[in-house]
Amino acid sequence: MDTRMQKFSEKELTRIHDASMDLLKNTGVAFNDDEALGIFRKNGFKVDGHTVFFSEKNVRQAIESAPARFKVSARNPAHTVSIGGDGVVFAPGYGAAFIITRDGEQRKATLADYEDFCKLVQTSRTMNITGFLMAAPSDVPVATAHLDMLYANITLCDKPFMGSPVSRAGAEDCIDMAAMVWGGKEKLMETTVTVSLITPLSPLQYTAEMTGAVVTLARHNQACIFGALLMAGASGPLSIAGVLVQQNAEILAGVTLTQLVRPGAPVIVGGTSAIMDMRTGCLSMGAPEVARISSATVQMAKFYNLPARSGSANTDAHFPNAQAGFESALNLYVALQNGSNFILHAAGILGAYNAMSFEKFIIDEEVCSQILESLKPVKITDESIDLDLIKEVGIGGNYLTHPKTYEQCRTAFYLSDLVNRRGFFDWQDAGAKPITARATEILNERLAQYVKPDIDPQLEKDLLSYVQKRKQKLDRYA
Amino acid sequence: MDTRMQKFSEKELTRIHDASMDLLKNTGVAFNDDEALGIFRKNGFKVDGHTVFFSEKNVRQAIESAPARFKVSARNPAHTVSIGGDGVVFAPGYGAAFIITRDGEQRKATLADYEDFCKLVQTSRTMNITGFLMAAPSDVPVATAHLDMLYANITLCDKPFMGSPVSRAGAEDCIDMAAMVWGGKEKLMETTVTVSLITPLSPLQYTAEMTGAVVTLARHNQACIFGALLMAGASGPLSIAGVLVQQNAEILAGVTLTQLVRPGAPVIVGGTSAIMDMRTGCLSMGAPEVARISSATVQMAKFYNLPARSGSANTDAHFPNAQAGFESALNLYVALQNGSNFILHAAGILGAYNAMSFEKFIIDEEVCSQILESLKPVKITDESIDLDLIKEVGIGGNYLTHPKTYEQCRTAFYLSDLVNRRGFFDWQDAGAKPITARATEILNERLAQYVKPDIDPQLEKDLLSYVQKRKQKLDRYA
Repeated sequence: MDTRMQKFSEKELTRIHDASMDLLKNTGVAFNDDEALGIFRKNGFKVDGHTVFFSEKNVRQAIESAPARFKVSARNPAHTVSIGGDGVVFAPGYGAAFIITRDGEQRKATLADYEDFCKLVQTSRTMNITGFLMAAPSDVPVATAHLDMLYANITLCDKPFMGSPVSRAGAEDCIDMAAMVWGGKEKLMETTVTVSLITPLSPLQYTAEMTGAVVTLARHNQACIFGALLMAGASGPLSIAGVLVQQNAEILAGVTLTQLVRPGAPVIVGGTSAIMDMRTGCLSMGAPEVARISSATVQMAKFYNLPARSGSANTDAHFPNAQAGFESALNLYVALQNGSNFILHAAGILGAYNAMSFEKFIIDEEVCSQILESLKPVKITDESIDLDLIKEVGIGGNYLTHPKTYEQCRTAFYLSDLVNRRGFFDWQDAGAKPITARATEILNERLAQYVKPDIDPQLEKDLLSYVQKRKQKLDRYA
Repeated sequence: MDTRMQKFSEKELTRIHDASMDLLKNTGVAFNDDEALGIFRKNGFKVDGHTVFFSEKNVRQAIESAPARFKVSARNPAHTVSIGGDGVVFAPGYGAAFIITRDGEQRKATLADYEDFCKLVQTSRTMNITGFLMAAPSDVPVATAHLDMLYANITLCDKPFMGSPVSRAGAEDCIDMAAMVWGGKEKLMETTVTVSLITPLSPLQYTAEMTGAVVTLARHNQACIFGALLMAGASGPLSIAGVLVQQNAEILAGVTLTQLVRPGAPVIVGGTSAIMDMRTGCLSMGAPEVARISSATVQMAKFYNLPARSGSANTDAHFPNAQAGFESALNLYVALQNGSNFILHAAGILGAYNAMSFEKFIIDEEVCSQILESLKPVKITDESIDLDLIKEVGIGGNYLTHPKTYEQCRTAFYLSDLVNRRGFFDWQDAGAKPITARATEILNERLAQYVKPDIDPQLEKDLLSYVQKRKQKLDRYA
């Protein structure tokens, strides 16, 4: 036995695929958008009302034309990332409306919070991509919030950023603003610079907003994550096998649309399907079933040779406590160990998407970083074993006083500024600081040290004027 | 790529083995006990002072004669466990002198605490074995504490128990008491009923106490865990490869002794080697290097086809907080996922062995249980997929109101009495209870509901009178 985590056989993965194809052929998936339906029809798909039916050949072609690996360029080339293969990138929590304060109070998120998350990503050694909707700002109009968030993403951080999938128009704004940064739409078409989260409306449909965004983003060669979030027992069946089949059908339908719009458009497949807790009726993201689904989800993506999204730092706890610690760590570890390429909600998220916590953001960064460290291979060579040293220290000896220990001790091990590694009395003498208090200190240092990355002042002005112009237009309809 | 956790090649494991053999042949391991040295000499080993030198053949013979799997019988046969193969058993924390109270205060452990831990194991759905030294009782004389602990283990719990390895005499007491329960020493020789923790005094030696215990326990067919705990940078080299080689040499030396005493005596190999944090000088059990060592340790045991011990719920935190949550979960998950057969310190331990926490005991049980659940394979069959149901619910349908959901919802998912799965306001209305407060409630319920398992009143009297007689004798020398 190599590992106790189930490795699905080719036959099992094929069975999931076949069952998904049965659904796609016979039940279909609804896309509530006329342009998309037109594209399907034009390509010879059977369409009935909003429902599209897929053949094995349609889906196979799409899977083959989508890239196994692609690059997402950053404004600062040093931060450009590659998605797929053996690599992994992390993006912060997404979609929460609230902030849990350091004292455990819940308050509505603001644009200032959102900007702080941009600054945290910019100063992060772990997060590779600025999220979108890292906290839903309550103090700006909903209809134009995506403009504020995109502006913050682009100007406050020079890492790649997640795009706006809020609607066709929202995605167009994203494309327009990205095009301004990358020298026009033509250039943008050659360069993937954003990744946007597309969530099917389970079971088996895509809203008009999401569908419009998919068409727009794929057309401009911008990446879509097809991230199914079935809630087993509500929007998906209770059975995990059933969840895997249904989410796979939803994902394949979305991927197929992107490849009809533009063959080779980058996609990431997977999701964070979870369960409904049958006692509270709530979505549970900390349940052990989530880890089982997550592991299977990565394996299904690898079966298709597509970049996999799975895992998160999610939890059902409402404060960064022991429950949040172990649930987040297990969710992250299972995904990372199984080969996930894109981990969304990798920092800050609490309460099954209910809220973001700045303190948890800092803690989760540490967990991501420690897990990556724990997965580093150990080199077994004569040099790394250094038998002469062990013989020299010998029976009952002490390595502490050996010159080699002195030489290497600063770099030998992973260091952490967050966790406590003092003895009890030492820790008590230092104020018996809870880890959340230490996280607050690090948070404040990070925000204080943040330096806004360079940006061409004219570009910044142009972006701002685009945002203002669009706001005037959208406000009129709001 | 199947998993990102390194799978060592046969060649790498052989290289570790060969380097360990080089140490065993040329540097040797010291055993500070005349009887053991006599046994080595009688079997033709080279012995110089206290140092024993081993040939490849000596070690190979021992590895082959030790069982790959063995049974540990419980007073209640329903609790008998099998150790090795695909199975895993859990035992609580071990060796801590302190208790961290629910308020985070540190106090000395007492015999009453120890007894409470026995009761918790008895009522546990997760812990399979009563530990030894689950908290070092400060209110009884050190010289006779093992008698009190053994008496508590046997009478308060009818699961298998960890034995006393404190010294030759301490191990003899364990054998005598176990023999009383199992109908005499002859019968005990046929039945493994205890597992004892033998820790080498790294580097490369065994104390007189541990050696005497090994000889006594192996002679009576009782299991020894050879659990190396190197502290990289102090009692072991900084390099992980070096740690693996040195700990392996120490383990193999101990295993060899058991097989000379009694071929076929059960052993468990592995350990929890860790690092010295170079900034505080403290042992760090939460460091990511611990996971790397832990994974390699299991693989080395499997290479020898011996039951593996690895992993723990250990952490460097001094309270069951987020740090304790993620460090414990990662330590447990890595060991479980890699195939560890025996997880010691699986519940309650804090501060790198500094203290036990009753609240953390309850939380760790939950983590163990959730990890086991997360590792359960998902059956992919037509029945488990149930495509008809997915088709019936169809596009935009709702599973919640389907009769099948109603039928299966009580048993479909893992349930937890500990963690929060309520929404924020619901949780707040219910008192916004921290997980540690909920753990206290469960703890109190468990202790209140505890029922002492049946025991023959004459046996109980005999055990007590043995303890009293031995105390009188040992107190005279104390």
